[in-house]
Amino acid sequence: MPVLVMKFGGTSVADLDRIANAAAKVKAEVERGYDVIVIVSAMSGKTNELVGWVDQTSKLYDAREYDAVVSSGENITAGLMALRLQEMEVPARSWQGWQVPLKTNDAHSAARIEEIPTDNINQKFGEGMRVAVVAGFQGIGPDGRITTLGRGGSDTTAVAFAAAFGAERCDIYTDVDGVYTTDPRITSKARKLEKIAFEEMLELASLGAKVLQTRSVELAMRYKVRLRVLSSFEESTPESGTLVCDEEEIMESNVVSGVAYSRDEAKMTLVSVADRPGIAAAIFGPLAEAGVNVDMIIQNISEEGRTDMTFSVPVIQVERAKQAMEEAKEAGDINFHHLVADQDVAKISVVGIGMRSHAGVAAKMFNALSAEGVNIKVIATSEIKISVLIDRKYMELAVQALHDAFELEQAS
Amino acid sequence: MPVLVMKFGGTSVADLDRIANAAAKVKAEVERGYDVIVIVSAMSGKTNELVGWVDQTSKLYDAREYDAVVSSGENITAGLMALRLQEMEVPARSWQGWQVPLKTNDAHSAARIEEIPTDNINQKFGEGMRVAVVAGFQGIGPDGRITTLGRGGSDTTAVAFAAAFGAERCDIYTDVDGVYTTDPRITSKARKLEKIAFEEMLELASLGAKVLQTRSVELAMRYKVRLRVLSSFEESTPESGTLVCDEEEIMESNVVSGVAYSRDEAKMTLVSVADRPGIAAAIFGPLAEAGVNVDMIIQNISEEGRTDMTFSVPVIQVERAKQAMEEAKEAGDINFHHLVADQDVAKISVVGIGMRSHAGVAAKMFNALSAEGVNIKVIATSEIKISVLIDRKYMELAVQALHDAFELEQAS
Repeated sequence: MPVLVMKFGGTSVADLDRIANAAAKVKAEVERGYDVIVIVSAMSGKTNELVGWVDQTSKLYDAREYDAVVSSGENITAGLMALRLQEMEVPARSWQGWQVPLKTNDAHSAARIEEIPTDNINQKFGEGMRVAVVAGFQGIGPDGRITTLGRGGSDTTAVAFAAAFGAERCDIYTDVDGVYTTDPRITSKARKLEKIAFEEMLELASLGAKVLQTRSVELAMRYKVRLRVLSSFEESTPESGTLVCDEEEIMESNVVSGVAYSRDEAKMTLVSVADRPGIAAAIFGPLAEAGVNVDMIIQNISEEGRTDMTFSVPVIQVERAKQAMEEAKEAGDINFHHLVADQDVAKISVVGIGMRSHAGVAAKMFNALSAEGVNIKVIATSEIKISVLIDRKYMELAVQALHDAFELEQAS
Repeated sequence: MPVLVMKFGGTSVADLDRIANAAAKVKAEVERGYDVIVIVSAMSGKTNELVGWVDQTSKLYDAREYDAVVSSGENITAGLMALRLQEMEVPARSWQGWQVPLKTNDAHSAARIEEIPTDNINQKFGEGMRVAVVAGFQGIGPDGRITTLGRGGSDTTAVAFAAAFGAERCDIYTDVDGVYTTDPRITSKARKLEKIAFEEMLELASLGAKVLQTRSVELAMRYKVRLRVLSSFEESTPESGTLVCDEEEIMESNVVSGVAYSRDEAKMTLVSVADRPGIAAAIFGPLAEAGVNVDMIIQNISEEGRTDMTFSVPVIQVERAKQAMEEAKEAGDINFHHLVADQDVAKISVVGIGMRSHAGVAAKMFNALSAEGVNIKVIATSEIKISVLIDRKYMELAVQALHDAFELEQAS
């Protein structure tokens, strides 16, 4: 029988009623003819409670013990879900990570999946079991101890299982009903996308459309696992939600698929830097060492041997970036007049694989912003994305203007 | 280094402060020179919460899933305890049942321990680890799935580890500070025993002195594991609590060690039973099949081929016992006039290994009760115990009178 992977996040299994609701969705897929692998998160709040206990017990905690404690939340949900399915007369059983065994490296609390043997679960499928409920977010390390996969671990578990079992699809049930052309809170014209390409989803995820963790989308792209994002709280049909898939599966699409934004950016400028070969390395080396995530970078035209260097960083890293620059200046590695940090900015991006074959996207974007009187402070582009930094107060206006300009309320 | 096993029950690890308190006791033993194996229960209330979730999810639940869910409570405590010990600079790590592995049979929810390999933990002791924190109450079955040991499982885990590792002693930390000559709520003269023999403890435990589970004492007796019962909430010294040990280790003791009572007994009488060979089997066979735990039995002298048969059962099993007897009567297996159930009774027992070598204990007991005007309804004796059923209203009076008569307020 074809295999389907279904993943339910914390809010989708927050209490016994929601577990029952999720189980009903699983049963429906079994009745459609699938053998189902269900990946579950901990009941929402549970993991935070456990993490809180660990933090209170030990400040510099042993990550191996952290993993042993924190993974128990998913184990509870997995057992309860299997019981609920059995109660609905669906042959089901639970697996903890070490029982599969989902093998990881030894990077406790942030482990990478290395192997998922399929024999145990496939044997049970062969014996008539229809649903394997697997505790997400966890595995077993080379030392035989429990590991957890870190942020986004349950989505990643689901995608990895889908790849290992050659699943027809990996359905990610969450509290939103799909991926939108932009945030519906900013414009009511936002439209749910039927399909989106992996590359687009990656750009949207890393830009703050927090539907799927970047890591799980990367894994899905590498193994060509078709991902569907849909709501736990609505009736689901085979057409529900948004399918994240290879671009070949998307016949026609708009040039631009979506408009993303982030208000957590700050613009920093080193004013009057002594320009010389290697100056970029002298600046961004220390920033990287300080753990600052630099995103956009622009360098002005040099005049009389001096230039201005502007870059964007997350707002919460501004102080760290300042310190790194002042230290580099004191050490004589770089020479600049002063440092300006502008935290009242926002980043707006338009994303679309259609850009590869269509020119004029940037011009259309800049015109639309200009027509609304929005000044562009920094520009950065990639093959399928154009991002700009603007004053934060224009953020909503800019998103609305771009959504209109690219006619995103209409499907292609 | 000598090995010590320390077991902390649910109230002793109820929250992070109590876990810290328990960890301090562990550290003290490490400093006394022991390698310590700590067996922990779930934080109190945790197991009940998990059991409640299982019950609400599935009425006739799969015991394997029940075990997977319920065992997580102990795993959480084990990790937190290991972290706390590390924070106190004691080299420690946690083990879940399957990691040891503590091997059991496949009787999920009521599994029996079959083997505890010592190599893993001993290897770590050899490498400088001083404390192995083990999640109690759980193991792994022949099918590779998690099992739980059922009622009293954590005490039993502790004793089994002490036996496997040849521990010097197994300390059971609980919310009482030892075993008393009788319930201190009934007489302030009740005295904490310094030592008590396994056999005595078994009689006291099964009679309702709920300090230790019968099963763990049986195991301790079989493997001659010295058990110490002591309080988590008091300063502990090597002399704290009560030592449960082989009688050879008890040099001198009172003839009677303690007076136990139970108010959960009922007396049932089959009036005018047709007496014939095999009548006892015809009565107690159906009761056993109905799951009724018959304790004391007496048969009156037969007159004109008929007799009265009296026995005691737990109060909550009275209805079940009645039903079994009426059915046996209807089936023609037994013949009696009517059935009387007296629920206003209590059982009082005096227990002591000294009885083996001292005559006159029964006479002294009956005299003491008679002097207080207490009528004895049923008597039963074993080698180290004499039990009587009396009217429940005299229960406290009887306990006090017997405690005085056998001078239990004074050590021998």
